[in-house]
Amino acid sequence: MEKGLLIVVSGPAGSGKGTVNAMLLESEEYAFSVSATTRDPRPGEVHGKNYLYITREDFEGRIARGEMLEHTVYCDNYYGTPLKEAMEVLESGRNLILEIEVEGAMNVKRRYPDAVLIMLLPPSFAVQEARLRGRATETEDCILKRLERTKSEVALLNHYDYVVYNRDNGAGICADDIRAIVRAEKCSVRRHAKASEDYFV
Amino acid sequence: MEKGLLIVVSGPAGSGKGTVNAMLLESEEYAFSVSATTRDPRPGEVHGKNYLYITREDFEGRIARGEMLEHTVYCDNYYGTPLKEAMEVLESGRNLILEIEVEGAMNVKRRYPDAVLIMLLPPSFAVQEARLRGRATETEDCILKRLERTKSEVALLNHYDYVVYNRDNGAGICADDIRAIVRAEKCSVRRHAKASEDYFV
Repeated sequence: MEKGLLIVVSGPAGSGKGTVNAMLLESEEYAFSVSATTRDPRPGEVHGKNYLYITREDFEGRIARGEMLEHTVYCDNYYGTPLKEAMEVLESGRNLILEIEVEGAMNVKRRYPDAVLIMLLPPSFAVQEARLRGRATETEDCILKRLERTKSEVALLNHYDYVVYNRDNGAGICADDIRAIVRAEKCSVRRHAKASEDYFV
Repeated sequence: MEKGLLIVVSGPAGSGKGTVNAMLLESEEYAFSVSATTRDPRPGEVHGKNYLYITREDFEGRIARGEMLEHTVYCDNYYGTPLKEAMEVLESGRNLILEIEVEGAMNVKRRYPDAVLIMLLPPSFAVQEARLRGRATETEDCILKRLERTKSEVALLNHYDYVVYNRDNGAGICADDIRAIVRAEKCSVRRHAKASEDYFV
């Protein structure tokens, strides 16, 4: 059984990464892994489905023992990807998609250098701004914060492996781009270190 | 207009590279460039279609002036890819396929580091041998020479970017692999060196 690929998809607000990842996940070749968090479950959320709801003590113990692939703190709560669950997905042959922000992506790459880092971008900052304002669901203050944050996100693009542009109504094209990236990566000589010896066995 | 990719496809006898490349060339996105040679045209061959038939003096002058992307000597004649014709294909936005052996591939990579090197392989040496014997069009001596040559070819696999395995009746799958590689390479951050600046323009 060939191992799956660990694929990190990052992208600023308005890049459409949620839509694109949902398209990939329609196929059984792709999977999410359930994140762990220390925040309380909201009404209707299910342990093991939405999140693994664990205590702060448990979470910090996992970090200390190197059992988290990546984690972050948001509003005083921990969020992160347990290493064991992630590795189980890869061993099953499915490709694991992690939708995480840039700092988390850098941590994943350090912990698991075989990860493929993909940044999804709107065609330009101007288009991104127009999309965020078009949503009309957020305050001006919130929009400005998201746009400001985009600068530090895109600044890390050179640490990523691939950039995929989400042009108008382009989520399907982006999903195809990512499928092509996965197919190509599986042919990369880096991932076939022993191919020249194995050929003669 | 986005520049095309220069794609080198190498592979030992029996890898099926001719069939795979012919499939790619059915699309206008892919092109061959006409090679130059110092050998005489055979009956029916057309200058500018099969080869550019040029004199030894002309060929050696082009080498000296750095006007050949790669060249090789075979049976006392030069064969090679003129740089100008190759660059014209890339500037037109089409992807250029060069079907050349490993030494030529290494030369291309030195002259044009953006080239993508793909090695097409049968699933194993044993299958390759069975395929060559199954053809029954070559002498035992010739088959042994081809098999022997394969060892030095596969030894250079680690200098290639991708390895594509041609399994039974797999030429169509190989062509799809190569199309995925081209699509992925066009998303690679290496090929978008200024993307993070351009995003805010």
